Amino acid sequence: MNSAREQQPGRLAIIAGGGKLPLYVAEAARRAGEDPLIIAMEGETALDWSGWDHVWLGLGNVAGFDQIAHSNNIDRVVMCGAIKRRPALSELRLNLATLLKVPEGIRKLVSGGDNALLTMVANLIERRGRRVIGAHEIAPDLLAETGPIGQHRPDKEAIADIGVAIDAALTIGRLDIGQAAVTVGGRVVALEGPEGTDEVLLRVADLKSAGRVSSRRRGVLVKLCKPGQDERMDLPSIGVSTLENAHKAGLAGVAIEAGRSLVLDRQAVCDFADRHGMFVYGIDPQQTEGRAP
Amino acid sequence: MNSAREQQPGRLAIIAGGGKLPLYVAEAARRAGEDPLIIAMEGETALDWSGWDHVWLGLGNVAGFDQIAHSNNIDRVVMCGAIKRRPALSELRLNLATLLKVPEGIRKLVSGGDNALLTMVANLIERRGRRVIGAHEIAPDLLAETGPIGQHRPDKEAIADIGVAIDAALTIGRLDIGQAAVTVGGRVVALEGPEGTDEVLLRVADLKSAGRVSSRRRGVLVKLCKPGQDERMDLPSIGVSTLENAHKAGLAGVAIEAGRSLVLDRQAVCDFADRHGMFVYGIDPQQTEGRAP
Repeated sequence: MNSAREQQPGRLAIIAGGGKLPLYVAEAARRAGEDPLIIAMEGETALDWSGWDHVWLGLGNVAGFDQIAHSNNIDRVVMCGAIKRRPALSELRLNLATLLKVPEGIRKLVSGGDNALLTMVANLIERRGRRVIGAHEIAPDLLAETGPIGQHRPDKEAIADIGVAIDAALTIGRLDIGQAAVTVGGRVVALEGPEGTDEVLLRVADLKSAGRVSSRRRGVLVKLCKPGQDERMDLPSIGVSTLENAHKAGLAGVAIEAGRSLVLDRQAVCDFADRHGMFVYGIDPQQTEGRAP
Repeated sequence: MNSAREQQPGRLAIIAGGGKLPLYVAEAARRAGEDPLIIAMEGETALDWSGWDHVWLGLGNVAGFDQIAHSNNIDRVVMCGAIKRRPALSELRLNLATLLKVPEGIRKLVSGGDNALLTMVANLIERRGRRVIGAHEIAPDLLAETGPIGQHRPDKEAIADIGVAIDAALTIGRLDIGQAAVTVGGRVVALEGPEGTDEVLLRVADLKSAGRVSSRRRGVLVKLCKPGQDERMDLPSIGVSTLENAHKAGLAGVAIEAGRSLVLDRQAVCDFADRHGMFVYGIDPQQTEGRAP
């Protein structure tokens, strides 16, 4: 980090969406000797940024971002945290340079999956000579490792469920639809769209209590990078709420992609999983597709 | 129908799940000179079967079905209407012959998609020399035809959405996950699992009102047979509630597979669609995949 710092005379900006990830990235940046500027997305981040040099910015305010980045000598940008909404056209604040990209941008804004949209935004940022970097480059401790994270391991049934869910998650990932799939007793019962993982898990809980999905079998959640995903943004992530909702759905555990997924509040995640007999497992989908991990 | 009738000295049974389809099949059967026996699934069909020769049967009561079918000289069986639950193991009533199939049956019951499960049930029925036939063989009028069903046609944007949704629906269909996909502005925003089409549409309405999916674009619902699906059971179907919920989701219309989907209450479906400027369109996915219909 230090050598990168020396080569980079500019400042780091953290575009902060929802959840706690932006705070962890900001703290990791400080530990690495950075003086990050927080660009807090209005209506998305609910954290208290008063202890940080920060500005608030509306979703879609591209011109505002350019002005802030220019006047703060920003040369690297981390985009992190969930952006739940898509900006309405009326919220877009564009300057002359971005206006030239509008036809492509509008199309992506409406019709692209998250990955297509985020890649477009990253390209907009990088056209000014700034670099977009991944949250895991600032906070590598958040990355999931291979193998058990916590005390428990998937049993034979869970391993079989993981294999089926990997195929399903990669299938929807290729279509830029979502990153997560839930399998129960070898059957795919929910695929993630824009609603997010927590709502997918609550749907599975509902399906089980309505008897539409067997509640005798536990099942697994698998979250993977989309094939071809831009890894600087929107890496799959899990936190305590993921485990809580997986528990509500009666799942045996959660498997995420080692090296390309983030575990937030790792200690609390492990504590919850250990206490409820659930596994959290880092997998390499290339090695496990169709096989036991 | 008459010639088939002459060759078949036995009686027709209609296993009735939820919704109105079983009634339409029963009425069509009567019109064709049949004297159908209604086997009403407890907890699934909410219709009043008092005008019909009928018996109630619990989900999973295979032995009870065998006894009823034998004593009523049933030689053909139509399975129709939604079965929302999967029977719990404690509900299974098996006789000696079906017990032999239990290991496979239990596995399908828990882990199979709907198609795998229904095919297993059909095979159980057919082992006794009875034939399972499709609802559309009794009530062919319900089948969707190619082209507009109602006054409106998909416009250019809807045609593009249909193409994207066809690919998505076939993809999840191949995995025996579901039959329906919703696309808005070229982006797949919801895929059907065991929750059913109405809940998928309500999810899209929620995503739009939360701003997670553009509400400036309308979008489409596409419902298709799963590739490899046993066409005697669970053909994709739409009814007035489908149109009502598609309207709540702001969709431009609904496209279904011509010749392999059922339109229930066709007049009411057309009236609703016409009144709200929505299309209902029968497509051939083999001809339209990736192209305009």
